[in-house]
Amino acid sequence: MCELLGMSANVPTDICFSFSGLVKRGGETGPHKDGWGIAFYEGVGYREFRDPNPSVDSEIAKLIQRYPIKSKTVISHIRQANVGEICLENTHPFSRELWGRYWSYAHNGQLEESKTHFPASFYLPVGTTDSEQAFCWLLAQIRLNFTDQCAIGPLSQALHQWCEQLRSKGVFNMLLSNGDYLFAYCSTKLSWITREAPFGEAQLSDVEMKVDFKEETTPHDVVTVIATQPLTDNEAWNTILPGELVVFKEGRVVERFLKNTAE
Amino acid sequence: MCELLGMSANVPTDICFSFSGLVKRGGETGPHKDGWGIAFYEGVGYREFRDPNPSVDSEIAKLIQRYPIKSKTVISHIRQANVGEICLENTHPFSRELWGRYWSYAHNGQLEESKTHFPASFYLPVGTTDSEQAFCWLLAQIRLNFTDQCAIGPLSQALHQWCEQLRSKGVFNMLLSNGDYLFAYCSTKLSWITREAPFGEAQLSDVEMKVDFKEETTPHDVVTVIATQPLTDNEAWNTILPGELVVFKEGRVVERFLKNTAE
Repeated sequence: MCELLGMSANVPTDICFSFSGLVKRGGETGPHKDGWGIAFYEGVGYREFRDPNPSVDSEIAKLIQRYPIKSKTVISHIRQANVGEICLENTHPFSRELWGRYWSYAHNGQLEESKTHFPASFYLPVGTTDSEQAFCWLLAQIRLNFTDQCAIGPLSQALHQWCEQLRSKGVFNMLLSNGDYLFAYCSTKLSWITREAPFGEAQLSDVEMKVDFKEETTPHDVVTVIATQPLTDNEAWNTILPGELVVFKEGRVVERFLKNTAE
Repeated sequence: MCELLGMSANVPTDICFSFSGLVKRGGETGPHKDGWGIAFYEGVGYREFRDPNPSVDSEIAKLIQRYPIKSKTVISHIRQANVGEICLENTHPFSRELWGRYWSYAHNGQLEESKTHFPASFYLPVGTTDSEQAFCWLLAQIRLNFTDQCAIGPLSQALHQWCEQLRSKGVFNMLLSNGDYLFAYCSTKLSWITREAPFGEAQLSDVEMKVDFKEETTPHDVVTVIATQPLTDNEAWNTILPGELVVFKEGRVVERFLKNTAE
Protein backbone atom coordinates (compact mmCIF):
# COMPACT_ATOMS: atom_id res chain seq x y z
CA MET A 1 0.00 0.00 0.00
CA CYS A 2 0.98 3.64 -0.14
CA GLU A 3 0.13 6.95 1.45
CA LEU A 4 -1.45 9.99 -0.12
CA LEU A 5 -1.12 13.68 0.73
CA GLY A 6 -3.00 16.55 -0.88
CA MET A 7 -3.51 20.24 -0.32
CA SER A 8 -6.11 22.74 -1.52
CA ALA A 9 -5.76 26.37 -0.45
CA ASN A 10 -7.09 29.82 -1.33
CA VAL A 11 -3.62 31.38 -1.27
CA PRO A 12 -0.30 29.97 -2.47
CA THR A 13 0.92 28.02 0.55
CA ASP A 14 3.95 25.84 1.14
CA ILE A 15 3.49 22.25 2.25
CA CYS A 16 6.89 21.83 3.95
CA PHE A 17 5.32 21.02 7.36
CA SER A 18 2.95 18.26 6.22
CA PHE A 19 5.51 16.88 3.75
CA SER A 20 8.07 16.61 6.57
CA GLY A 21 5.66 14.29 8.38
CA LEU A 22 4.87 12.23 5.30
CA VAL A 23 8.48 11.56 4.27
CA LYS A 24 9.20 9.96 7.64
CA ARG A 25 6.69 7.26 6.71
CA GLY A 26 8.81 6.57 3.62
CA GLY A 27 11.19 4.18 5.36
CA GLU A 28 11.34 5.40 8.97
CA THR A 29 7.98 5.58 10.80
CA GLY A 30 6.27 3.76 7.91
CA PRO A 31 7.23 1.09 5.34
CA HIS A 32 6.57 3.16 2.19
CA LYS A 33 10.14 3.16 0.91
CA ASP A 34 9.59 2.36 -2.77
CA GLY A 35 9.70 5.90 -4.07
CA TRP A 36 7.81 9.12 -3.61
CA GLY A 37 6.61 12.11 -5.58
CA ILE A 38 5.00 15.51 -5.22
CA ALA A 39 3.22 17.74 -7.74
CA PHE A 40 2.71 21.49 -7.38
CA TYR A 41 0.37 23.73 -9.35
CA GLU A 42 1.45 27.33 -9.70
CA GLY A 43 -1.42 28.98 -11.58
CA VAL A 44 -1.87 26.73 -14.61
CA GLY A 45 1.83 25.86 -14.38
CA TYR A 46 2.72 22.46 -13.02
CA ARG A 47 5.84 20.73 -11.76
CA GLU A 48 6.51 17.41 -10.18
CA PHE A 49 9.41 15.95 -8.29
CA ARG A 50 9.56 12.18 -8.31
CA ASP A 51 12.17 9.79 -7.04
CA PRO A 52 12.24 5.98 -6.90
CA ASN A 53 14.51 6.22 -3.81
CA PRO A 54 13.05 6.09 -0.26
CA SER A 55 11.85 9.53 0.76
CA VAL A 56 13.74 9.49 4.08
CA ASP A 57 17.06 9.23 2.18
CA SER A 58 16.19 11.28 -0.89
CA GLU A 59 18.29 14.36 -1.69
CA ILE A 60 15.34 15.72 -3.65
CA ALA A 61 12.93 15.17 -0.74
CA LYS A 62 15.33 17.08 1.50
CA LEU A 63 15.17 20.02 -0.93
CA ILE A 64 11.34 19.96 -0.91
CA GLN A 65 11.32 19.99 2.91
CA ARG A 66 13.52 23.07 3.18
CA TYR A 67 12.68 24.99 -0.01
CA PRO A 68 9.15 26.42 0.26
CA ILE A 69 7.32 26.14 -3.06
CA LYS A 70 4.06 28.09 -2.79
CA SER A 71 1.08 26.44 -4.40
CA LYS A 72 -2.71 26.37 -4.10
CA THR A 73 -2.97 22.71 -5.08
CA VAL A 74 -0.56 19.88 -4.25
CA ILE A 75 -0.66 16.10 -4.67
CA SER A 76 1.95 13.86 -3.06
CA HIS A 77 2.48 10.10 -2.68
CA ILE A 78 4.86 7.71 -0.96
CA ARG A 79 4.93 4.23 -2.37
CA GLN A 80 5.02 0.72 -1.02
CA ALA A 81 5.05 -1.25 -4.24
CA ASN A 82 2.64 -4.07 -4.97
CA VAL A 83 2.00 -4.13 -8.73
CA GLY A 84 4.89 -2.91 -10.90
CA GLU A 85 8.60 -2.83 -10.08
CA ILE A 86 10.33 0.02 -8.27
CA CYS A 87 11.40 2.47 -10.97
CA LEU A 88 10.80 6.03 -12.05
CA GLU A 89 8.00 5.25 -14.53
CA ASN A 90 6.00 3.56 -11.76
CA THR A 91 6.42 6.46 -9.32
CA HIS A 92 3.34 8.63 -8.59
CA PRO A 93 1.96 11.24 -9.20
CA PHE A 94 1.14 10.60 -12.85
CA SER A 95 0.12 13.44 -15.13
CA ARG A 96 -1.35 14.06 -18.56
CA GLU A 97 -2.60 17.12 -20.42
CA LEU A 98 -6.35 17.44 -21.06
CA TRP A 99 -8.08 20.58 -22.46
CA GLY A 100 -4.86 22.58 -22.15
CA ARG A 101 -4.44 21.84 -18.44
CA TYR A 102 -2.21 19.38 -16.62
CA TRP A 103 -4.13 16.74 -14.70
CA SER A 104 -2.31 15.02 -11.87
CA TYR A 105 -3.20 11.84 -10.00
CA ALA A 106 -1.97 9.52 -7.26
CA HIS A 107 -3.49 6.24 -6.07
CA ASN A 108 -3.34 4.21 -2.89
CA GLY A 109 -4.58 0.64 -3.05
CA GLN A 110 -4.56 -2.25 -5.43
CA LEU A 111 -6.94 -3.36 -8.15
CA GLU A 112 -7.48 -7.04 -8.87
CA GLU A 113 -5.50 -7.95 -11.93
CA SER A 114 -8.18 -10.15 -13.46
CA LYS A 115 -10.65 -7.26 -13.28
CA THR A 116 -8.50 -4.50 -14.66
CA HIS A 117 -8.34 -4.92 -18.37
CA PHE A 118 -8.60 -1.33 -19.56
CA PRO A 119 -9.02 -0.95 -23.31
CA ALA A 120 -6.31 1.13 -25.04
CA SER A 121 -7.49 4.71 -25.24
CA PHE A 122 -6.42 8.22 -25.88
CA TYR A 123 -3.95 8.03 -22.99
CA LEU A 124 -1.57 5.11 -22.59
CA PRO A 125 0.36 4.10 -19.50
CA VAL A 126 4.17 4.38 -19.64
CA GLY A 127 4.84 2.19 -16.61
CA THR A 128 3.37 -1.12 -15.47
CA THR A 129 1.18 -0.20 -12.49
CA ASP A 130 -2.57 -0.79 -12.15
CA SER A 131 -2.64 2.79 -10.79
CA GLU A 132 -1.47 4.43 -14.01
CA GLN A 133 -3.81 2.24 -16.08
CA ALA A 134 -6.75 3.39 -13.97
CA PHE A 135 -5.64 7.01 -14.37
CA CYS A 136 -5.46 6.75 -18.16
CA TRP A 137 -8.92 5.14 -18.20
CA LEU A 138 -10.42 7.81 -15.91
CA LEU A 139 -8.98 10.68 -17.92
CA ALA A 140 -10.20 9.16 -21.18
CA GLN A 141 -13.72 8.88 -19.69
CA ILE A 142 -13.63 12.57 -18.78
CA ARG A 143 -12.39 13.48 -22.25
CA LEU A 144 -15.03 11.39 -23.99
CA ASN A 145 -17.98 12.53 -21.89
CA PHE A 146 -17.31 16.19 -21.09
CA THR A 147 -15.85 19.35 -22.57
CA ASP A 148 -13.59 22.01 -21.09
CA GLN A 149 -16.71 24.17 -20.52
CA CYS A 150 -18.48 21.60 -18.33
CA ALA A 151 -19.85 22.44 -14.87
CA ILE A 152 -18.16 20.92 -11.84
CA GLY A 153 -21.35 19.26 -10.52
CA PRO A 154 -22.03 16.84 -13.38
CA LEU A 155 -18.30 16.19 -13.84
CA SER A 156 -17.89 15.30 -10.15
CA GLN A 157 -20.96 13.08 -10.20
CA ALA A 158 -19.69 11.15 -13.22
CA LEU A 159 -16.21 10.89 -11.71
CA HIS A 160 -17.78 9.49 -8.54
CA GLN A 161 -19.52 6.77 -10.56
CA TRP A 162 -16.27 5.85 -12.37
CA CYS A 163 -14.44 5.71 -9.04
CA GLU A 164 -17.18 3.46 -7.67
CA GLN A 165 -16.57 1.16 -10.65
CA LEU A 166 -12.86 1.07 -9.80
CA ARG A 167 -13.58 0.42 -6.11
CA SER A 168 -15.53 -2.70 -7.15
CA LYS A 169 -12.22 -4.02 -8.58
CA GLY A 170 -10.19 -3.65 -5.37
CA VAL A 171 -8.93 -0.82 -3.16
CA PHE A 172 -9.02 2.59 -4.77
CA ASN A 173 -8.15 5.67 -2.68
CA MET A 174 -7.29 8.50 -5.04
CA LEU A 175 -6.35 12.15 -5.42
CA LEU A 176 -6.90 13.85 -8.78
CA SER A 177 -6.55 17.50 -9.77
CA ASN A 178 -6.56 19.86 -12.72
CA GLY A 179 -5.08 22.64 -10.60
CA ASP A 180 -8.40 24.31 -9.75
CA TYR A 181 -10.22 21.38 -8.18
CA LEU A 182 -8.86 18.62 -5.99
CA PHE A 183 -10.92 15.41 -6.14
CA ALA A 184 -10.46 13.04 -3.17
CA TYR A 185 -12.08 9.64 -3.44
CA CYS A 186 -11.99 7.17 -0.54
CA SER A 187 -12.17 3.42 -0.82
CA THR A 188 -10.82 2.48 2.61
CA LYS A 189 -8.90 5.33 4.28
CA LEU A 190 -8.63 9.09 3.70
CA SER A 191 -8.86 12.06 6.11
CA TRP A 192 -8.80 15.83 5.79
CA ILE A 193 -8.56 18.95 7.90
CA THR A 194 -9.28 22.58 7.07
CA ARG A 195 -7.17 25.18 8.84
CA GLU A 196 -8.43 28.76 8.98
CA ALA A 197 -8.63 31.66 11.47
CA PRO A 198 -8.32 31.47 14.39
CA PHE A 199 -5.20 29.44 13.59
CA GLY A 200 -3.52 27.35 16.26
CA GLU A 201 -0.51 25.15 16.76
CA ALA A 202 -0.04 21.76 15.17
CA GLN A 203 2.29 18.94 16.19
CA LEU A 204 3.35 16.26 13.67
CA SER A 205 2.77 12.63 14.69
CA ASP A 206 5.81 11.21 12.88
CA VAL A 207 8.55 13.60 13.91
CA GLU A 208 9.20 16.12 16.70
CA MET A 209 8.03 19.15 14.76
CA LYS A 210 5.56 21.83 15.65
CA VAL A 211 4.24 24.83 13.77
CA ASP A 212 2.24 27.83 14.92
CA PHE A 213 0.08 28.61 11.90
CA LYS A 214 -0.78 32.06 13.33
CA GLU A 215 2.74 33.12 12.45
CA GLU A 216 2.62 31.69 8.94
CA THR A 217 -0.78 32.87 7.72
CA THR A 218 -3.14 35.82 7.28
CA PRO A 219 -6.71 35.82 8.72
CA HIS A 220 -8.17 35.14 5.25
CA ASP A 221 -6.21 31.96 4.52
CA VAL A 222 -8.08 28.69 4.13
CA VAL A 223 -5.86 25.65 3.78
CA THR A 224 -7.11 22.07 3.57
CA VAL A 225 -4.78 19.10 3.90
CA ILE A 226 -5.88 15.59 2.90
CA ALA A 227 -3.95 12.49 3.97
CA THR A 228 -4.31 8.73 4.17
CA GLN A 229 -3.80 9.00 7.93
CA PRO A 230 -3.88 12.19 10.02
CA LEU A 231 -0.44 13.79 10.07
CA THR A 232 -0.86 15.68 13.36
CA ASP A 233 -1.84 14.35 16.77
CA ASN A 234 -3.38 17.45 18.38
CA GLU A 235 -6.06 18.32 15.78
CA ALA A 236 -9.40 16.77 14.83
CA TRP A 237 -9.32 15.39 11.27
CA ASN A 238 -12.44 14.57 9.22
CA THR A 239 -12.85 11.09 7.82
CA ILE A 240 -13.94 10.55 4.21
CA LEU A 241 -16.26 7.54 4.08
CA PRO A 242 -15.70 4.50 1.87
CA GLY A 243 -17.31 5.24 -1.49
CA GLU A 244 -17.32 8.98 -0.91
CA LEU A 245 -15.92 11.62 -3.26
CA VAL A 246 -15.14 15.05 -1.81
CA VAL A 247 -14.22 17.89 -4.17
CA PHE A 248 -12.19 20.83 -2.87
CA LYS A 249 -11.55 24.23 -4.39
CA GLU A 250 -9.58 27.03 -2.77
CA GLY A 251 -9.52 25.03 0.46
CA ARG A 252 -13.33 24.56 0.67
CA VAL A 253 -15.55 21.53 0.01
CA VAL A 254 -17.58 22.32 -3.13
CA GLU A 255 -19.05 18.91 -4.01
CA ARG A 256 -19.64 15.72 -2.09
CA PHE A 257 -21.06 12.39 -3.23
CA LEU A 258 -21.70 9.43 -0.91
CA LYS A 259 -21.34 5.80 -1.92
CA ASN A 260 -23.89 4.25 -4.23
CA THR A 261 -26.82 3.23 -2.05
CA ALA A 262 -27.70 0.34 -4.35
CA GLU A 263 -24.75 -1.62 -2.93
CA MET B 1 16.51 33.90 -27.39
CA CYS B 2 17.41 30.93 -25.28
CA GLU B 3 20.03 28.20 -25.07
CA LEU B 4 19.61 24.48 -25.53
CA LEU B 5 21.55 21.57 -24.06
CA GLY B 6 21.07 17.90 -24.88
CA MET B 7 22.81 14.62 -24.18
CA SER B 8 22.65 11.19 -25.79
CA ALA B 9 24.78 8.39 -24.33
CA ASN B 10 25.13 4.61 -24.46
CA VAL B 11 25.41 4.33 -20.68
CA PRO B 12 23.58 6.25 -17.94
CA THR B 13 25.73 9.35 -17.52
CA ASP B 14 25.39 12.45 -15.37
CA ILE B 15 25.34 15.85 -17.01
CA CYS B 16 26.58 17.84 -13.97
CA PHE B 17 29.65 19.16 -15.84
CA SER B 18 27.87 20.53 -18.92
CA PHE B 19 24.92 21.77 -16.87
CA SER B 20 27.31 23.72 -14.62
CA GLY B 21 28.47 25.61 -17.71
CA LEU B 22 24.97 26.21 -19.01
CA VAL B 23 23.51 27.62 -15.77
CA LYS B 24 26.14 30.37 -15.72
CA ARG B 25 24.60 31.68 -18.92
CA GLY B 26 21.30 31.98 -17.03
CA GLY B 27 22.00 35.41 -15.61
CA GLU B 28 25.80 35.55 -15.21
CA THR B 29 27.85 34.92 -18.38
CA GLY B 30 24.66 35.07 -20.47
CA PRO B 31 21.33 36.93 -20.35
CA HIS B 32 19.05 33.87 -20.21
CA LYS B 33 17.59 34.57 -16.79
CA ASP B 34 13.88 33.92 -17.45
CA GLY B 35 13.76 30.37 -16.18
CA TRP B 36 15.35 27.05 -16.95
CA GLY B 37 14.51 23.38 -17.06
CA ILE B 38 16.04 19.95 -17.49
CA ALA B 39 14.49 16.58 -18.37
CA PHE B 40 16.04 13.19 -17.67
CA TYR B 41 15.07 9.83 -19.11
CA GLU B 42 15.79 6.83 -16.91
CA GLY B 43 14.73 3.84 -19.00
CA VAL B 44 11.19 4.74 -20.08
CA GLY B 45 10.86 6.75 -16.87
CA TYR B 46 11.01 10.51 -17.17
CA ARG B 47 11.44 13.43 -14.81
CA GLU B 48 11.85 17.13 -15.31
CA PHE B 49 12.96 19.94 -13.08
CA ARG B 50 11.73 23.36 -14.15
CA ASP B 51 11.98 26.72 -12.49
CA PRO B 52 10.91 30.19 -13.65
CA ASN B 53 13.75 31.68 -11.53
CA PRO B 54 17.17 32.48 -13.06
CA SER B 55 19.32 29.36 -13.12
CA VAL B 56 22.30 31.06 -11.45
CA ASP B 57 20.18 31.73 -8.34
CA SER B 58 17.97 28.64 -8.41
CA GLU B 59 18.04 26.30 -5.41
CA ILE B 60 16.83 23.52 -7.69
CA ALA B 61 19.58 24.18 -10.24
CA LYS B 62 22.13 23.94 -7.43
CA LEU B 63 20.76 20.50 -6.57
CA ILE B 64 21.05 19.36 -10.21
CA GLN B 65 24.67 20.55 -10.33
CA ARG B 66 25.74 18.58 -7.27
CA TYR B 67 23.38 15.57 -7.36
CA PRO B 68 24.36 13.28 -10.25
CA ILE B 69 21.25 11.88 -11.95
CA LYS B 70 22.37 9.21 -14.42
CA SER B 71 20.55 9.22 -17.73
CA LYS B 72 21.09 8.19 -21.34
CA THR B 73 19.02 11.06 -22.73
CA VAL B 74 18.75 14.61 -21.39
CA ILE B 75 17.17 17.81 -22.68
CA SER B 76 17.78 21.16 -20.99
CA HIS B 77 16.93 24.78 -21.71
CA ILE B 78 17.62 28.23 -20.27
CA ARG B 79 15.19 30.92 -21.27
CA GLN B 80 15.35 34.52 -22.36
CA ALA B 81 11.67 35.25 -22.86
CA ASN B 82 10.30 36.77 -26.03
CA VAL B 83 6.77 35.40 -26.54
CA GLY B 84 4.86 34.55 -23.33
CA GLU B 85 5.40 35.89 -19.82
CA ILE B 86 7.89 34.46 -17.32
CA CYS B 87 6.02 31.76 -15.44
CA LEU B 88 6.15 28.03 -14.83
CA GLU B 89 3.78 27.06 -17.64
CA ASN B 90 6.02 28.83 -20.17
CA THR B 91 9.21 27.14 -18.93
CA HIS B 92 10.80 24.48 -21.15
CA PRO B 93 11.15 21.52 -21.60
CA PHE B 94 7.56 20.67 -22.46
CA SER B 95 6.38 17.07 -22.45
CA ARG B 96 3.43 14.96 -23.53
CA GLU B 97 2.72 11.22 -23.67
CA LEU B 98 2.51 9.56 -27.10
CA TRP B 99 2.31 5.78 -27.68
CA GLY B 100 2.97 5.09 -23.99
CA ARG B 101 6.22 7.06 -23.95
CA TYR B 102 7.01 10.55 -22.69
CA TRP B 103 8.13 12.92 -25.43
CA SER B 104 10.15 15.94 -24.34
CA TYR B 105 10.97 19.10 -26.26
CA ALA B 106 12.74 22.44 -25.95
CA HIS B 107 12.96 25.29 -28.47
CA ASN B 108 15.31 28.16 -29.08
CA GLY B 109 14.14 30.91 -31.41
CA GLN B 110 10.97 32.73 -32.24
CA LEU B 111 8.22 32.09 -34.77
CA GLU B 112 6.45 35.00 -36.45
CA GLU B 113 3.10 35.43 -34.77
CA SER B 114 1.16 36.05 -37.96
CA LYS B 115 2.44 32.78 -39.38
CA THR B 116 1.83 30.52 -36.41
CA HIS B 117 -1.82 29.74 -36.30
CA PHE B 118 -1.79 26.09 -35.35
CA PRO B 119 -5.19 24.40 -35.49
CA ALA B 120 -6.37 22.85 -32.21
CA SER B 121 -5.34 19.23 -32.16
CA PHE B 122 -4.94 16.23 -29.98
CA TYR B 123 -2.45 18.10 -27.80
CA LEU B 124 -3.18 21.59 -26.49
CA PRO B 125 -0.71 24.10 -25.09
CA VAL B 126 -1.04 24.97 -21.39
CA GLY B 127 1.09 28.12 -21.55
CA THR B 128 1.23 30.97 -24.04
CA THR B 129 4.51 30.43 -25.93
CA ASP B 130 4.92 29.89 -29.66
CA SER B 131 7.33 27.11 -28.62
CA GLU B 132 4.71 24.97 -26.89
CA GLN B 133 2.25 25.53 -29.75
CA ALA B 134 4.82 24.26 -32.22
CA PHE B 135 5.51 21.23 -29.99
CA CYS B 136 1.81 20.32 -29.78
CA TRP B 137 1.54 20.64 -33.56
CA LEU B 138 4.65 18.54 -34.21
CA LEU B 139 3.55 15.77 -31.86
CA ALA B 140 0.07 15.70 -33.39
CA GLN B 141 1.68 15.34 -36.86
CA ILE B 142 3.68 12.35 -35.62
CA ARG B 143 0.60 10.82 -34.03
CA LEU B 144 -1.52 11.29 -37.16
CA ASN B 145 1.05 10.03 -39.65
CA PHE B 146 2.92 7.22 -37.86
CA THR B 147 2.40 4.38 -35.42
CA ASP B 148 4.47 3.19 -32.48
CA GLN B 149 5.92 0.46 -34.75
CA CYS B 150 7.31 2.91 -37.34
CA ALA B 151 10.95 2.84 -38.45
CA ILE B 152 13.22 5.70 -37.45
CA GLY B 153 14.18 6.60 -41.04
CA PRO B 154 10.76 7.63 -42.37
CA LEU B 155 9.83 9.25 -39.06
CA SER B 156 13.02 11.34 -39.06
CA GLN B 157 12.50 12.35 -42.68
CA ALA B 158 8.95 13.50 -42.00
CA LEU B 159 10.04 15.30 -38.85
CA HIS B 160 12.71 17.09 -40.87
CA GLN B 161 10.08 18.33 -43.31
CA TRP B 162 7.83 19.59 -40.51
CA CYS B 163 10.80 21.36 -38.91
CA GLU B 164 11.58 22.95 -42.27
CA GLN B 165 8.00 24.26 -42.36
CA LEU B 166 8.49 25.76 -38.90
CA ARG B 167 11.83 27.28 -39.91
CA SER B 168 10.04 29.13 -42.70
CA LYS B 169 8.02 30.90 -39.99
CA GLY B 170 11.00 32.22 -38.02
CA VAL B 171 13.89 30.82 -35.99
CA PHE B 172 13.45 27.21 -34.92
CA ASN B 173 16.31 25.41 -33.18
CA MET B 174 14.92 22.41 -31.38
CA LEU B 175 15.65 19.31 -29.31
CA LEU B 176 13.04 16.54 -29.18
CA SER B 177 13.22 13.07 -27.65
CA ASN B 178 11.16 10.02 -26.78
CA GLY B 179 13.94 8.68 -24.56
CA ASP B 180 15.53 6.42 -27.20
CA TYR B 181 16.22 8.97 -29.92
CA LEU B 182 17.32 12.57 -29.59
CA PHE B 183 16.33 14.73 -32.56
CA ALA B 184 18.35 17.95 -32.98
CA TYR B 185 17.16 20.40 -35.60
CA CYS B 186 19.11 23.56 -36.40
CA SER B 187 17.68 26.76 -37.77
CA THR B 188 20.53 29.13 -36.88
CA LYS B 189 22.85 27.72 -34.23
CA LEU B 190 23.47 24.27 -32.74
CA SER B 191 26.70 22.31 -32.08
CA TRP B 192 27.60 18.87 -30.81
CA ILE B 193 30.55 16.85 -29.65
CA THR B 194 30.96 13.10 -29.13
CA ARG B 195 33.29 12.01 -26.36
CA GLU B 196 34.65 8.47 -26.40
CA ALA B 197 37.91 6.61 -25.74
CA PRO B 198 40.61 7.81 -25.60
CA PHE B 199 38.99 10.34 -23.28
CA GLY B 200 40.72 13.59 -22.43
CA GLU B 201 40.26 16.67 -20.33
CA ALA B 202 37.67 19.34 -20.93
CA GLN B 203 37.57 22.92 -19.67
CA LEU B 204 34.27 24.83 -19.44
CA SER B 205 34.14 28.22 -21.17
CA ASP B 206 31.75 29.86 -18.70
CA VAL B 207 33.28 28.92 -15.37
CA GLU B 208 36.66 27.78 -14.05
CA MET B 209 35.86 24.07 -14.12
CA LYS B 210 37.73 21.18 -15.63
CA VAL B 211 37.00 17.48 -15.85
CA ASP B 212 39.17 14.54 -16.80
CA PHE B 213 36.72 12.21 -18.52
CA LYS B 214 39.22 9.33 -18.26
CA GLU B 215 38.46 9.19 -14.56
CA GLU B 216 34.69 9.29 -15.01
CA THR B 217 34.19 6.78 -17.81
CA THR B 218 34.86 3.27 -19.09
CA PRO B 219 36.48 2.61 -22.50
CA HIS B 220 33.10 1.65 -24.01
CA ASP B 221 31.26 4.86 -23.13
CA VAL B 222 30.01 7.08 -25.94
CA VAL B 223 28.55 10.38 -24.80
CA THR B 224 27.34 13.11 -27.14
CA VAL B 225 26.52 16.60 -25.90
CA ILE B 226 24.55 19.06 -28.02
CA ALA B 227 24.46 22.78 -27.23
CA THR B 228 23.48 26.10 -28.78
CA GLN B 229 27.08 27.22 -28.34
CA PRO B 230 30.07 25.03 -27.46
CA LEU B 231 30.37 24.70 -23.69
CA THR B 232 34.10 23.93 -23.60
CA ASP B 233 36.97 25.89 -25.07
CA ASN B 234 39.60 23.17 -25.56
CA GLU B 235 37.63 20.72 -27.74
CA ALA B 236 36.47 20.73 -31.37
CA TRP B 237 32.67 20.86 -31.63
CA ASN B 238 30.72 19.96 -34.78
CA THR B 239 28.31 22.48 -36.24
CA ILE B 240 24.82 21.46 -37.32
CA LEU B 241 23.91 23.37 -40.47
CA PRO B 242 20.82 25.54 -40.83
CA GLY B 243 18.00 23.31 -42.03
CA GLU B 244 19.73 20.15 -40.86
CA LEU B 245 18.23 17.48 -38.62
CA VAL B 246 20.63 15.13 -36.81
CA VAL B 247 19.21 12.12 -34.94
CA PHE B 248 21.23 10.56 -32.11
CA LYS B 249 20.81 7.22 -30.39
CA GLU B 250 23.08 5.88 -27.66
CA GLY B 251 25.49 8.72 -28.37
CA ARG B 252 25.81 8.00 -32.12
CA VAL B 253 24.41 9.78 -35.17
CA VAL B 254 21.84 7.43 -36.74
CA GLU B 255 20.06 9.73 -39.20
CA ARG B 256 20.91 13.02 -40.84
CA PHE B 257 18.89 15.19 -43.24
CA LEU B 258 20.19 18.36 -44.86
CA LYS B 259 18.08 21.39 -45.64
CA ASN B 260 15.62 21.23 -48.51
CA THR B 261 17.61 21.87 -51.68
CA ALA B 262 14.60 23.44 -53.39
CA GLU B 263 15.14 26.60 -51.32
